[in-house]
Order: sequence, then C-alpha cells, then structure tokens
Amino acid sequence: MAPESQDQDLPQVLVLGPPTVFSCLESQFPNRFHFLKPWLSKLPLPQFLTSYAQYVQALIIPGGSLALTSAILDCLPSLKLVATASAGVDHLDLPELRRRGVAVAYAGNLFSEDVADMAVGLLIDVLRKVSAGDRFMRQGLWSTKVNFPLGLKLSGKRIGIVGLGRIGCEVAKRLEGFGCRISYNSRTKKPLVPYSYYSNVHELAAECEALIICCGLTEETRHMINREVMVALGKDGVIINIGRGAIVDEKEMIRCLLQGEIWGAGLDVFENEPEIPEQLFTLDNVVLSPHVAVTTHETFLRLSKLMVDNLEAFFSNRPLVSPLWISGAAEEG
Amino acid sequence: MAPESQDQDLPQVLVLGPPTVFSCLESQFPNRFHFLKPWLSKLPLPQFLTSYAQYVQALIIPGGSLALTSAILDCLPSLKLVATASAGVDHLDLPELRRRGVAVAYAGNLFSEDVADMAVGLLIDVLRKVSAGDRFMRQGLWSTKVNFPLGLKLSGKRIGIVGLGRIGCEVAKRLEGFGCRISYNSRTKKPLVPYSYYSNVHELAAECEALIICCGLTEETRHMINREVMVALGKDGVIINIGRGAIVDEKEMIRCLLQGEIWGAGLDVFENEPEIPEQLFTLDNVVLSPHVAVTTHETFLRLSKLMVDNLEAFFSNRPLVSPLWISGAAEEG
Repeated sequence: MAPESQDQDLPQVLVLGPPTVFSCLESQFPNRFHFLKPWLSKLPLPQFLTSYAQYVQALIIPGGSLALTSAILDCLPSLKLVATASAGVDHLDLPELRRRGVAVAYAGNLFSEDVADMAVGLLIDVLRKVSAGDRFMRQGLWSTKVNFPLGLKLSGKRIGIVGLGRIGCEVAKRLEGFGCRISYNSRTKKPLVPYSYYSNVHELAAECEALIICCGLTEETRHMINREVMVALGKDGVIINIGRGAIVDEKEMIRCLLQGEIWGAGLDVFENEPEIPEQLFTLDNVVLSPHVAVTTHETFLRLSKLMVDNLEAFFSNRPLVSPLWISGAAEEG
Repeated sequence: MAPESQDQDLPQVLVLGPPTVFSCLESQFPNRFHFLKPWLSKLPLPQFLTSYAQYVQALIIPGGSLALTSAILDCLPSLKLVATASAGVDHLDLPELRRRGVAVAYAGNLFSEDVADMAVGLLIDVLRKVSAGDRFMRQGLWSTKVNFPLGLKLSGKRIGIVGLGRIGCEVAKRLEGFGCRISYNSRTKKPLVPYSYYSNVHELAAECEALIICCGLTEETRHMINREVMVALGKDGVIINIGRGAIVDEKEMIRCLLQGEIWGAGLDVFENEPEIPEQLFTLDNVVLSPHVAVTTHETFLRLSKLMVDNLEAFFSNRPLVSPLWISGAAEEG
C-alpha cells in the first residue's frame, strides 16, 4: 500500500508479519508513525519493498515464524533498526544484522511473568487433565456415569527447569508455592539460586517428574529433548514446552505420548507453527496452545508502549529502551 | 448381593454410592472387610438394607450427591460409624447422626493440596483460556489464521478467597508465588494471616479481580455468590468454584457469563451434579470440571488407607484416625 498523503511527514516504519500486537499498537498510538503495510498490497514482498521501502530506516516484526532473511534485508538498504515484538530472536540473523549495522530492539523480559503463569497452567492442566475434563463435560459424558480418569498430583513433585533464565526463575518461584522441589539445567551453574543443578538434561530428566522447557532455540538446544531424555523422564513424566518447538524432537514426543512412555505434554510451541501434526489432535494426554503464553491484554498494552518507545528513541537518536542483549535473549527463548 | 461365604467372619461394612475411591480401596486392601454392595443387588435399597444390613455397624459413603437420609438410617438400626470419602459433610445430617449415636469419620485435610492445585489451574485456565485454546487447536483453527483472543494476566492480580480454611490457605500460598495480592472473607477474621479481611463477600468482590470459593455449603453460604456479588466483581472478574455448586447462584452466574458481566468462571462443582445446565456447554469463557479437584492417583491411595485405618480403628475400639471435627469440616467444604 502506497504511503498515504496525510502522514507523509511522520517517520516511516515498515511492518512485517504483522505482529499480533500491531493492531493494538496502531490504535493505542495513532499519528506517531507512517506504517508501511506490505500485506495490504498486491505486490510480492520483494517488489513492495523495492518500490516503497528504499528509505525505510526501521521495521517491526513478530517473533517466531517469519524469518528476516538476507533477501529481505537486501531490499532495505537504509534499514537501521529491527524492533521485534518477541523475547526470542531465533528468527533474526544477528551476525548479518550486526554486519549491516542494524540495531535490534526486542521485548526483553516483558513476557516473563505471563509465560511463567502459562507454564504452570499447562503443567496443572496436563497433570490434572483440566482441558480433557472440560472436553468430557462438553461431550455430556458426566451424567452418563462414565468415569473420568484420575490425574496426578502436582504438590510436592520434582520439577526440572530447562534453562533458568528470567522465565525459568519465574516458573520456579511459582512452583515453590506448590511445595515442588526444583532442579535445573542450564549452560552454567547459577551461583545465587537454591535449586539443584544438572549440567546434563538427561540426568535432570531422570531425577524429575516434569520438565519445563524455558530455554531459547540454538544449535545446541535443537532436539535436546530427544527420545532418551523422555524415556529417562518416565511414564509418569510430563513435558511442558513454552520455549520453542524445535527444542523437543516432536516426532519422538508423539511416539512417547502414544505409547504411554511419558504421561503427557503441554505445548505452547511447535516445530512447524502454525502447522501441527494431526496425531496430536487425537491424544487426550496433551494440551495444545496456539503460542499464546506471552499474550495477555495487559502485556499487549505494555508491549505496544515499549515498541513505540523504542521507535521514538531511535528516531530521536536516543538510546533504545530495550536493545537486544544477546546472552539474555538467547536464554529467555 | 448376599454375603459371600468366604468372608463371613470379616467385619461387615455397607458401601453406599459407592465412593469413587472404593475400587481402589478394595483392591489395595483385600480380605480386611466383608463389603455389602447394594448396587449389585436387584432389590431396591430399603429392601436390601432391611434384608442384609440389620447388623451392619459401619458404612462408607461418597461425598456430595448421595444424601444419607433418615429413611436410610431407619433401615440400619445397628449403625455406629459413617465413614465419608469426602472433606465436605453437607450430605450428612449431623444432628440426626449425633442423636442416633453414630460417629463420623471423614477425609479431613487429605484433599487440601490437590484442591488448591486445581483451583489455581482453573484460575489460570479461565484467565489465559487454556481449555479454549486447546479446543481452538483441535478444531484445526490455528493454521486458518483465525485470531485466538487474548487472555488476562494472572501475575499481580487481586484475588479474593471466600473461606480461608485449610484449602483457602493452600490456595493463597500458591498465589503468593504469582505475586497476587490476597484478600479473604470468612465468618471471623483470622488472627495469624497477613491477608486483608472483608467481613462481607460483596465488598471483597468489589476489591478483587477473581473470587475463589473455598468454603463449605451451609444455609448461610447457599447462593452467597449472587448477582450483586458478580456485578461487584465486574466484567474482568473471574469466579472459581471448588467448594460446592450451590454456593453460587448458578442461573445468575450463567446470565452474567452470557452477558459479559463477568469475564469467566472455572467450575469443579455444580448445583445439581452430575446434571449441569446445557447453556454452559455453549460458553467459551467457562471451564467445566467433573468434580475432580480432590482426585489424584496419589491422594486416592492415601484416602484408601485412611478409610481402612478408620474402619479398623472402629472395629478394634480404638479412636478414629480422622473423626469429624465439625467447625473445620464446614469451613473446608
């Protein structure tokens, strides 16, 4: 869509995706920027960019699915800022962006509490069969005297946290209130936390009854939760993934779920979002969530403001409010 | 079913219901008692009791739906012990049992942790739309780009606990880990808790964003959560009921849910279990659970043992392990 005349003088911001938060951002902060919206144009993206985005200095982008490739960057010779609406940055080619002198603003820890809340919600749901119970009720099965199967107890359980960044710590804090015993795996032992450290995720799984995946996706963490880890977790074991889908070997997980080699899984993320293996739909021991762990009304309002603050800082030559801090971001997922 | 010859010498225990835990109890503790099972007989219950239970001194019964009426008690002239597999005792006519000199054993605090875990699970589910998200996924809507609606944030919310007995305290402890601000309503202010006290549930609702019903059902608490309370809670307000269905005016709650006067409800209990109003099935802002907040594998094993311990104490003239302690029980729900 070509620039509209009335906001020609506003700073131009290219919107890729768009991020889910964009409509909230646009309505909350009108008349601050001139947004270029390729999805409203009939042109293929490269032609749109070549035609309208030659002078664009800033873009906003969602996390996760949409990769900011070199081919896209080649169409944006003036680009100086990528503001991603995510805490994870695996969709960004950071070395390439650095090479091109493009700064990155991200969501930082904004989502940590929401993600941790969701992780605990998914854990209770899988153990106590909350969604399965709701399905049972809506199918009208209660009054037929069909027995609803028993769940497993959360209180006191041994929980393993994979990736003890900000989100992992928030999950641990919550689960302490349930009397759970917390252990964790991360690249390095954290000096100031009271939880048991395992340098090896397989050993962590063997000691725990649930694993909560809170790490980011890197070459080291891809398919880190493999068949061996799941078997070590055991038949009463639960996997909660609020990190990135590809950290878990999804095919093997489905096999373990089908064969009862683990108790269940609560999944907010998947290997090929938004496509997910149809076998998952047939399983009563999984809870499926459309990558919304980060997403609440309250946080959307805060994220809109944060993105606007970053854009305004950029256009005023002030320091970014939440510049990417790579080590933290990679750990947050 | 008539007594079987091989266990004629074992103490007779009448089983009413039966409680869901009964099959677990029977398989875990074989050859301890001779169980009378009216549901296996073609006789109507009164005739069964008159024919086979004249000398029965002890019975076990589930909580909730099955009321132990005077008509039943009249058929059991030798009865000396009722062991209920529940923490709530509203199905028992306590004055009448006392008048007849019948002792009552109950489940005490055995369920508190499980119920509290479930209360938090339902709260997260309603706020964050976990079950609705799972339904959305299983309907294959994610890949169609239909937007899944935003949920509300739990962390930091103002939560009102209605009935701060053992379960209410366990719920509060868990929600502190989420940074929630806890207030409560109960018959009397508790001297040792750090939470704000409201003597009036309407005022509590006006100050809070969610109410968690943890009290028992009494004449005072019946329909205590009425339309006025729900309106005071407001359109972002959530009701979680893990107490008893009739504490909430169910018809008014459904009206408030339909009209968006409250955000949602998580319900493990209902006014006329297992029948529930079909309108609830059409609502995406409720989570329905088949009265399983108390029910996990681990707790069933412990409950089986507790009931057997009470029965053995009774038949050995030892004090009951978990005699009913009326004020505590009424508060626990």
